[in-house]
Amino acid sequence: MSDQPSADAQARIAELRQQIDDVDARIVELLNERARFSLEIRGLKPQAHLGLYDPKREEEIFARLAEQNRGPLYDENLREIYEAILHVMKEMRG
Amino acid sequence: MSDQPSADAQARIAELRQQIDDVDARIVELLNERARFSLEIRGLKPQAHLGLYDPKREEEIFARLAEQNRGPLYDENLREIYEAILHVMKEMRG
Repeated sequence: MSDQPSADAQARIAELRQQIDDVDARIVELLNERARFSLEIRGLKPQAHLGLYDPKREEEIFARLAEQNRGPLYDENLREIYEAILHVMKEMRG
Repeated sequence: MSDQPSADAQARIAELRQQIDDVDARIVELLNERARFSLEIRGLKPQAHLGLYDPKREEEIFARLAEQNRGPLYDENLREIYEAILHVMKEMRG
């Protein structure tokens, strides 16, 4: 006897994974776009007489993320992800 | 005497930060979209007779990210960011 509910659930999971892969492709593109802007800013900072690290700007970013967040992720989830993003942007080789 | 190069650099930085904020708004939306798909998959896994944690699927995700990566981020930068994303998706309250 075939296990139809199980087969249906597996098919739906495969479909959802495909949608996640599509989302990930767009996130990768946006992260690279962000990295390009970030590298340009880094190059301009000495000329603008600004320090390379700006904790105020980081707090602004976290506040804006929370403001834009409609869930289901919690603000602290976004903060965890963005700590990794900002860490990478800071350590990036130009 | 005004410091025109510095003022120009500061104006350009402000513009780039605005572009980064726009990118971040799109990333936040995509992360929440990804979270919804992920929660639906989690709900289906018992019915599909699949374990909740699937290291093979994680490796597939990392491989696909590297394949789609056009830089300037390095593959290992994307991996660092996605370790945080996948960690959050796993720990998320449903």
